[in-house]
Amino acid sequence: MRLPVAACCLLAVAAYAVDAVHPLRGYTPDDSATEIGWEQKFRQLPDPDHIRENMRRLSARPHHVGSPYDKDNAEWLLAQLKSWGLDAQIETFSALFPTPKSRKLELLGPTPFTAKLQEPPISVDPTSGQTSEQLPTYNAYSRDGDVTAPLVYVNYGRPEDYEVLDRMGISVKGAIVIARYGASWRGIKPKVAAEHGAVGCIIYSDPRDDGFYRGDPYPQGPMRPADGAQRGSVMDMPVYPGDPQTPGVGAVEGVKLIPIDQVQTITKIPVLPISWADATPFLKALGGETVPEAWRGSLPFTYHVGPSTAKAHLAVSFNWDRKPLYDVVAKIKGKKYPDQWVIRGNHHDAWVNGAGDPLSGASPELEEARALGELLKQGWEPDRTIIYCFWDGEEPALLGSTEWAETHADELKQHAVAYFNSDGNGRGYFRAEGSHSLENFVNEVAKDIQDPETKMTVWKRVRLVDINRATNQARGEIRSRSDLRIPALGSGSDYTVFIDHLGVASVNLGYGGEDEGGGQYHSAYDDFYWYTHFSDTDFSYGRALAQTAGTMVMRMADADVLPFQFGDLADTVHLYDTQLKTLLTEKRDDAKERDQEISDGVYQALYDPRKQMVPPPVEPVPPYLNFAPLDQASDDLTEAAKAFDQAFAAANGNAPLELNLDLIRSERVLTDDRGLPSRPWFEHLLYAPGFYTGYGVKTVPGVREAIEQKKWTEADEQITRVSAALEREADLLKDATKLLPAKKSE
Amino acid sequence: MRLPVAACCLLAVAAYAVDAVHPLRGYTPDDSATEIGWEQKFRQLPDPDHIRENMRRLSARPHHVGSPYDKDNAEWLLAQLKSWGLDAQIETFSALFPTPKSRKLELLGPTPFTAKLQEPPISVDPTSGQTSEQLPTYNAYSRDGDVTAPLVYVNYGRPEDYEVLDRMGISVKGAIVIARYGASWRGIKPKVAAEHGAVGCIIYSDPRDDGFYRGDPYPQGPMRPADGAQRGSVMDMPVYPGDPQTPGVGAVEGVKLIPIDQVQTITKIPVLPISWADATPFLKALGGETVPEAWRGSLPFTYHVGPSTAKAHLAVSFNWDRKPLYDVVAKIKGKKYPDQWVIRGNHHDAWVNGAGDPLSGASPELEEARALGELLKQGWEPDRTIIYCFWDGEEPALLGSTEWAETHADELKQHAVAYFNSDGNGRGYFRAEGSHSLENFVNEVAKDIQDPETKMTVWKRVRLVDINRATNQARGEIRSRSDLRIPALGSGSDYTVFIDHLGVASVNLGYGGEDEGGGQYHSAYDDFYWYTHFSDTDFSYGRALAQTAGTMVMRMADADVLPFQFGDLADTVHLYDTQLKTLLTEKRDDAKERDQEISDGVYQALYDPRKQMVPPPVEPVPPYLNFAPLDQASDDLTEAAKAFDQAFAAANGNAPLELNLDLIRSERVLTDDRGLPSRPWFEHLLYAPGFYTGYGVKTVPGVREAIEQKKWTEADEQITRVSAALEREADLLKDATKLLPAKKSE
Repeated sequence: MRLPVAACCLLAVAAYAVDAVHPLRGYTPDDSATEIGWEQKFRQLPDPDHIRENMRRLSARPHHVGSPYDKDNAEWLLAQLKSWGLDAQIETFSALFPTPKSRKLELLGPTPFTAKLQEPPISVDPTSGQTSEQLPTYNAYSRDGDVTAPLVYVNYGRPEDYEVLDRMGISVKGAIVIARYGASWRGIKPKVAAEHGAVGCIIYSDPRDDGFYRGDPYPQGPMRPADGAQRGSVMDMPVYPGDPQTPGVGAVEGVKLIPIDQVQTITKIPVLPISWADATPFLKALGGETVPEAWRGSLPFTYHVGPSTAKAHLAVSFNWDRKPLYDVVAKIKGKKYPDQWVIRGNHHDAWVNGAGDPLSGASPELEEARALGELLKQGWEPDRTIIYCFWDGEEPALLGSTEWAETHADELKQHAVAYFNSDGNGRGYFRAEGSHSLENFVNEVAKDIQDPETKMTVWKRVRLVDINRATNQARGEIRSRSDLRIPALGSGSDYTVFIDHLGVASVNLGYGGEDEGGGQYHSAYDDFYWYTHFSDTDFSYGRALAQTAGTMVMRMADADVLPFQFGDLADTVHLYDTQLKTLLTEKRDDAKERDQEISDGVYQALYDPRKQMVPPPVEPVPPYLNFAPLDQASDDLTEAAKAFDQAFAAANGNAPLELNLDLIRSERVLTDDRGLPSRPWFEHLLYAPGFYTGYGVKTVPGVREAIEQKKWTEADEQITRVSAALEREADLLKDATKLLPAKKSE
Repeated sequence: MRLPVAACCLLAVAAYAVDAVHPLRGYTPDDSATEIGWEQKFRQLPDPDHIRENMRRLSARPHHVGSPYDKDNAEWLLAQLKSWGLDAQIETFSALFPTPKSRKLELLGPTPFTAKLQEPPISVDPTSGQTSEQLPTYNAYSRDGDVTAPLVYVNYGRPEDYEVLDRMGISVKGAIVIARYGASWRGIKPKVAAEHGAVGCIIYSDPRDDGFYRGDPYPQGPMRPADGAQRGSVMDMPVYPGDPQTPGVGAVEGVKLIPIDQVQTITKIPVLPISWADATPFLKALGGETVPEAWRGSLPFTYHVGPSTAKAHLAVSFNWDRKPLYDVVAKIKGKKYPDQWVIRGNHHDAWVNGAGDPLSGASPELEEARALGELLKQGWEPDRTIIYCFWDGEEPALLGSTEWAETHADELKQHAVAYFNSDGNGRGYFRAEGSHSLENFVNEVAKDIQDPETKMTVWKRVRLVDINRATNQARGEIRSRSDLRIPALGSGSDYTVFIDHLGVASVNLGYGGEDEGGGQYHSAYDDFYWYTHFSDTDFSYGRALAQTAGTMVMRMADADVLPFQFGDLADTVHLYDTQLKTLLTEKRDDAKERDQEISDGVYQALYDPRKQMVPPPVEPVPPYLNFAPLDQASDDLTEAAKAFDQAFAAANGNAPLELNLDLIRSERVLTDDRGLPSRPWFEHLLYAPGFYTGYGVKTVPGVREAIEQKKWTEADEQITRVSAALEREADLLKDATKLLPAKKSE
């Protein structure tokens, strides 16, 4: 399929006025000029037509883990990569991947109802009718279960929602909870529900969150239709991702498996996702009070909290099979430093056809690989080894990336320089999150990429948009700070094992924000028809992604000295330190205020005889914690970073080879083999997905979560641990600085 | 109808532990003791059974202006008041009051639809079927009109909504706008629409604002059902309320009338209110972009801004008749100071049966009058004259109160001490707004009233609830300030002519906030069935209102020295001064920021080729204004108030008679005969309903609105005017202080 003529012309006339002219950081002036030349050549190569064709081919049939087309795609990817001269292979692993044996959801009582649990084909959408190959709507790693109980509505099902229920005097003990998708990662919902004594969990897609409230439903618009449901994993991944039967080790032939009944990351209660059409009779059956305003969705009736008089019957059972995983891995061997690896990845498996998730990222990645193959033919040779990965099994539990990285853990710890990840991609603004030692690097690359719509650099565009949307205070910082801040990595894609388990500096990147999307997410409608009607329809942002990620890979692979920068990291650590102190102060102030209000009789004043209202319990006021080690370490890191960055700049790309080895270790020293409290797999002490947020990051997680969970002794211990890691980083930088030529003056 | 036994018992055991024991402000110790005794006797008298019976009788049939039952109610009120020995009479006026001759609203085009414009009877609700006596759903003082045009959705139809439309490149010129009720007074919607070139205006009740989104719809719950519509006036009352043909003078026999075609307060375009069931096809016909999130209601489809391809046809015509107004006025002549009048009022007319609005306030007021009659029989004689008013014609345009007060303007300016107003009343927290010279008085009375539900004082209850709901900063102030702040008066009830036109110190009071109400507002369902099922069902808050307002009236009428206090007023003026400066600074900062963003290219960065986006125009940065006179006057007032309040306290209720005459003038000197810019009827320089908010108050309106409307020269002039008024107040207080005995020490 060809790109329409008008769009072709548009792309053809796009001038590359935005390319880098300054000497690149970590390069000698000569090497910088050479690199800039190759990068410019590279960025001319990605072709929206190819990206479109990649997506069309890969999304032509459902391709979840274990499906025929999943394997077919892997083999096709392999053949493509090989055809461009890359050294590619498929690495095969296996993992536990449950699929539905039976699913049933009924409302009992006077007006019984049985949920359809079907996404109907849509006539204009050719692949939506491939029902025989589609995985049914379900949540992977729900336990088997058959429960009958009254319903309670729990909003998004986060811990704070249960505090609201407590105030209303509503318990979910023995109940089936009905939660709406959104605001937290879905796996948190059954986890927290089970902790509160619920026996089952239904998760539905409220039209407020990704349906008609946001925009016209599919196929008139991009949003979720009445019968659309969101598949997805509910494994307790904040404990560990990857194959549940082989935590911490690669699931290769002959590995020892934990028995399924001893796996801790499978849900404690049965879970099922449903559409809003299926949810409606269950929500209408709820009695009790009207829910608080923040809990109300967009269905055309009053939302009540429950419990319901009529009971619901939820019964699910699964085939608990191990399925093969096909990771496609292509290497370009480095000329100078073959043992220093720059890794790039995006998954290829999907819940159904997966045009948006993940092919809008994987299709550009494949085009990047083609373009690099082209450069190789033109004579370019990277200094470092480049590894392009197309992961399988991301959707169930980051299976393919985790098993690969666990298998190669020792090599990766020694050789991995950085990991660049993408996943679904859309139209709009550049976004990146990742290691703060790469914040400056990410900014520098973004200044060399042209935005397809505005023709300004993607860096300038996002900076201006951020300025427009910022609070007054934040706006001042954006204007005065030379680098745009990048958020830290939580979880939700394949960078997790690299950053959190192995301590490999990582970046996740993509484009988006212009379209109100998400209504197709993890449904049978996330397909080529949907994507080419409602997202990056001309693939110009697919091209921008290929240009951006490819430039990052090349610039990291070819640098004389790895362009890590630590001033931004130190600044970020200071920010976290301040945030943690503020968090504790707020908790203390809140506790004091609450206890004061209880003793002043505020809850008697709020008493309404027509409503059940339970005052909060009196709680001890949080103690002061010893932040001195963290303050000290932040300052020490700032000093060391400043000295290093200055010496680095002065060196003009000239440095001994050992320096790169130090820099490769700079992210590793921020990890600790013992891992985080109660989840040893997560070893990074600055970043982790939240134990109760799932995707959302918790920075300085040991300390932050200890404060949030009121574990004061643990909080003090964790401050010591993270401070030690930061001192290690400062020491590493001091050593590294010594390797650089002394500064001219001072 | 009798109160249920349980509720009776509850009320019977309510101990009056909360009654005042401190000496009352403005009373000698002896007089204070006597007054406290009478007030305690008074508060025992109001009987929920009587209030219920008053409401039942008065709401038995529709009783809008000009209806048979409106007159019947007035005559019944008169008879009641007379039967208790009060000197009562009906004062009759007349006013222009248009009623519908014809109403038509159609959607043309491929799927035509004709709006029903009917509120169906509901079987369980006995008065909802009195359709032959009900006023149809309409907006009074809409002009006649017959227009056919495309539709545009304008959210709440406020000026800021049109700024959003400007950014989206949407014009309403030549269109019929469809606005939702809420967020501003309804009369603002057609006014602003006409200013922007619209040719018609439909106002509908979105279920998000008072329908199923808030709670179960009637008759399952209190909220507006699918076919419920909100009647109401759309006269341009921020210019002047009352009879449109007799601005500033009483509409008595023989008064000269402005011809209807010269009346400026009738809308410029035809207007019609509709239900959400009627609105649905019109909203669904809208094309164009999805509206911004803040614009979305709760109907189950995507809201688009328009314009519509299909046109709408709106045709309304009215009988432009003058109708009689029956104000019922009862007097209790003062023993000592018969020429000092304490006035109490609540309207008796309604849009339909009006149980909530206004009878939940009028029924307690009538019970107050009965109780005062009872006290008279027991030997109590007020020092000042008390006037109880039951106004007619509030709903169309505050007709009855305005014409009465305009007729008696000269006497009122001389004799009126204070005006105490109520209107609809509900269950929950005490609320009062009014003149800040009465802020302390209101607080003191509220400390003597027991809350029926919690048994704490209503003052303590609202204070604790405010603390719970306040921001951290506001909470500190509530805890440290001895008086709770009362908001200033905007408009929307009968106090308007007293405070804004005549400068009579006024308070509006009532209870509410516990029930999510409003769904019956101005509909055929605001009736006895609705009220006795969903609001203050045992009339315990009706009793609390009677106790509160009656205590205010007695305490003001019997005081040796009028208990005005000026420290709170001065503090409030300082607050306003600060707010105005902050407003100007924000406007300046916003303008600078916007202009900066325009020149930085932010709007190029925001450019989305799939959306129409119009950057805001560059605007001159607002100049600095001379706040020195206002700062000086605030300080002078603070000084004078402090001296006065101290001398007042030291006097222990002993003062010469002239002092009261000064105090009566203390609100009058805050007015100016020339009125506000472009609306001379509004003479108060501290308080006015906003020209573009309608109900919502604008404090220091001359200055604030000049800043908002970017009239910088006018703003400077208005600062001078209001400063002069505040200096007059300071001078008055200095003179008044001289009349008080010198303090013992210092």
